[in-house]
Amino acid sequence: MARKRQNRPRANAAAETGDNAPIYARIRDEFAAKIAAGKLKDGARLPTVRQLAKERSINPMTVARAYRELAERGFIIARAGSGSFVSRPGRAPANGRAPAADDLTLDPGGISSRLFELARAPGVIAFTGNYPSVEMSDAAAFAQCLQDSLSRGAAEYFRYDPPAGREELREALLPFLAQHGITTRADNLMVTSGGQQGMDIVARHLLARGDRVILEQPAYFGAINVVRAAGAVPIPLRFGANGFDLDEVAEAIRKHSPRLIIINPTFQNPTGHSVPLNQRRGLVALAHESGVPILEDDPGPELRFRGVALPPLRALPGGDEVVYYTRGFGKTFIPGVRLGFLLPPRGDLNACLEIKATTDLQSPALLQGALADYLRRTDWLGYLRRLCAGYGARQEKLYAILTGALSSYGHLSLPDGGLNLWLELPGEINAREVYFNAVRRGVAFAVADSFSFRPERPSALRIAFGLTDPKDYEEGASRLAHVLRNVVSPERSLSSAVV
Amino acid sequence: MARKRQNRPRANAAAETGDNAPIYARIRDEFAAKIAAGKLKDGARLPTVRQLAKERSINPMTVARAYRELAERGFIIARAGSGSFVSRPGRAPANGRAPAADDLTLDPGGISSRLFELARAPGVIAFTGNYPSVEMSDAAAFAQCLQDSLSRGAAEYFRYDPPAGREELREALLPFLAQHGITTRADNLMVTSGGQQGMDIVARHLLARGDRVILEQPAYFGAINVVRAAGAVPIPLRFGANGFDLDEVAEAIRKHSPRLIIINPTFQNPTGHSVPLNQRRGLVALAHESGVPILEDDPGPELRFRGVALPPLRALPGGDEVVYYTRGFGKTFIPGVRLGFLLPPRGDLNACLEIKATTDLQSPALLQGALADYLRRTDWLGYLRRLCAGYGARQEKLYAILTGALSSYGHLSLPDGGLNLWLELPGEINAREVYFNAVRRGVAFAVADSFSFRPERPSALRIAFGLTDPKDYEEGASRLAHVLRNVVSPERSLSSAVV
Repeated sequence: MARKRQNRPRANAAAETGDNAPIYARIRDEFAAKIAAGKLKDGARLPTVRQLAKERSINPMTVARAYRELAERGFIIARAGSGSFVSRPGRAPANGRAPAADDLTLDPGGISSRLFELARAPGVIAFTGNYPSVEMSDAAAFAQCLQDSLSRGAAEYFRYDPPAGREELREALLPFLAQHGITTRADNLMVTSGGQQGMDIVARHLLARGDRVILEQPAYFGAINVVRAAGAVPIPLRFGANGFDLDEVAEAIRKHSPRLIIINPTFQNPTGHSVPLNQRRGLVALAHESGVPILEDDPGPELRFRGVALPPLRALPGGDEVVYYTRGFGKTFIPGVRLGFLLPPRGDLNACLEIKATTDLQSPALLQGALADYLRRTDWLGYLRRLCAGYGARQEKLYAILTGALSSYGHLSLPDGGLNLWLELPGEINAREVYFNAVRRGVAFAVADSFSFRPERPSALRIAFGLTDPKDYEEGASRLAHVLRNVVSPERSLSSAVV
Repeated sequence: MARKRQNRPRANAAAETGDNAPIYARIRDEFAAKIAAGKLKDGARLPTVRQLAKERSINPMTVARAYRELAERGFIIARAGSGSFVSRPGRAPANGRAPAADDLTLDPGGISSRLFELARAPGVIAFTGNYPSVEMSDAAAFAQCLQDSLSRGAAEYFRYDPPAGREELREALLPFLAQHGITTRADNLMVTSGGQQGMDIVARHLLARGDRVILEQPAYFGAINVVRAAGAVPIPLRFGANGFDLDEVAEAIRKHSPRLIIINPTFQNPTGHSVPLNQRRGLVALAHESGVPILEDDPGPELRFRGVALPPLRALPGGDEVVYYTRGFGKTFIPGVRLGFLLPPRGDLNACLEIKATTDLQSPALLQGALADYLRRTDWLGYLRRLCAGYGARQEKLYAILTGALSSYGHLSLPDGGLNLWLELPGEINAREVYFNAVRRGVAFAVADSFSFRPERPSALRIAFGLTDPKDYEEGASRLAHVLRNVVSPERSLSSAVV
């Protein structure tokens, strides 16, 4: 993303020193010139420090210094132990291996940093946060639970706990899960450091390099990242306003023999769409027939503003045998709390616990104790009613404003819940061009590229309103409309208004 | 470990039902009988649910239920998506693949759960906690910082942060690092969820399946776990009272072309031994010459009771180019806080940050804020002086008692710091036999097997005294001596008192 772009080498950076320069500087400039001239292609591997030192009979430290400065100037990426590679922006693989052919075209690893920066940039109206603001959330009630836990004495919370997490929290989760139609026992659950960790644990448990994974397209970048980090290959499942096509799933299973299906069925990130009940049932049945399990990422099903609640896949008959269910508490209850849980299919918990222990031993006991307290003591159903009333009104207001300002440029959908809207633009429009123009004009959002894992670039914007002040909706919409007006030619804006 | 042993099938569990039993029960019992009789060997793969259902023209759910009950009874391990395997205790691979030939013989993934259980078992004198008790630690000061952070208002801490962690914490870490001779900048550092996560991130960044890693032997089980989870092959480096042999490292590099060296140089877990300065220098030089980087795990170098401080490898000249330095704050300052940091070599931070984002997005902002406050506001140097005085006296007392009670059974070393003692037993003694007898007698510790990754079983006990009440030292030593007396034959105890 932009962060990496700004680090790209200037062509003239290669000529700062002449023949009298120290050896390291001459080596540095020699390689910089080759890279700038395209003689060394993106991704090419440089000789190792030892090889080059031997070849030229110089000290390895000299070569190391040259390579270090090349890395600092953005010409190469140095990976200790695996070598130095000519730098390609947005192409840094998570584990030092070259990415697979149909791997990512963008860098979702960097997108979260970028979104965090934008959300805090002065003068920017940021439609980037898809979680509740601290004022709208139940963070104050949670803070009170923390205060109470601390004043009861710290001895209970300042020690090491088992990887599964505190029993009091796992017990307190049972009524919460029952509200979602999931009945289980505390010893089937494990506490995680947020929903992201649940996804990562399942991916590490099940996936090896080269394995195929059916993944909705577009998908949450955190899901793309866990697939990528495992070295697995995503198989796209088209996901839209009507969910997905079960026949396409069956065909993908036959053709690709995947090891896992990853899906975020309710108020999907980024589109906001939900999977209808018949497709949920069909997907669980397919998982049973084929033996391919499902990772269900369910970050915030409570954020429903209209329509009837849909059961998670895990709550459907047979779901307990094929569904890994994971979620966090940051997207609905307490932003940034970094606590969640994973409910694996029966028999698979111990393997997941071993990975949790390897990852970070345990999640912080104090936060776990406070969350258990929160779930036991507070009226979180009442909180959810207030939250949905507040954000439901915001969603309707923003939708009306954006529809008025932008309807000639694309199609805006109105999901039944969640804190995202999804603006689909005509395919000819480069969403990244819109993005960079918009940031300069003082309005920010996420582009579809960040949620994509195919060379094709869907043209859409995720407009998340969790943190945006409703007073800024009009101005934000007006800035975005201005940018679109300049990017879209008048003919195009008339002929392909809705895609 | 014991947990898994207790789940082993009883041979007669296979015959609970007869010919009139439901189909699932007959299938279950058929396989249980084959496994009990050894007709299906450990590790053998069962037919898939679909295969077997088709073969016998029955419903896949029937087969699935039979397999589930076999898994619940410990006959098989069912891995959703990868199949069902005849169960071998302590052999569950982290990612569903068969372990490499010289992979682990024990199950370090389960050891931490077991140690936690023992530390809390009533009637057991547990020498299992190698971190300070809440009363000895600075948890109270940290709790005060947390209270203050909460009362200043929660808005700051209940939102999502960038993966690198809060800048205020990274800034507050600089004087802390300077105390250890490490000078760097805040933007070279990343916050982690404890030292374990730092190790795991480096392993995920650098290692692929089959890569070789030089790892001290014995080693902290958390280090063994990250190597194992990456599918890498550990190459043992003998580690003892005099550190290690640099020639052995050089030879291992030549012979195995490893991708990484992992070392815990100060008050090593489990032995308590430290690497002398000349070996530290030599290892950094070897890393430079060979291009093989070092992962330095440094959980608690402040816990020094005598002798002069040794610089971390990262602080030595050239260390910043080849050393990934990681540590947590749980082993010295605030038990269970699950915060630490990773300082990668220059140029490698972004790749590590991508993995952090994939793993858990970020560590909890509130805890980070409180730790920053703690490092800025409290007299943590004064705290460390008190901590070392307190635990130094405890170490001397325990050493004197254990030497008196156990010297005829083995060799006890007295490290310069840390909360472990290491009792080496004559090689003929099976440390696990000692362990199981000891737990029955009401005294617990960790056995060398848990810190080992080779088929050979070193015979030694890690006696950690962080949580043990000094009033229990005498009784604990007496119980352990009783067990050793029964396990060691009189001849053996006389002839090989010191090994």
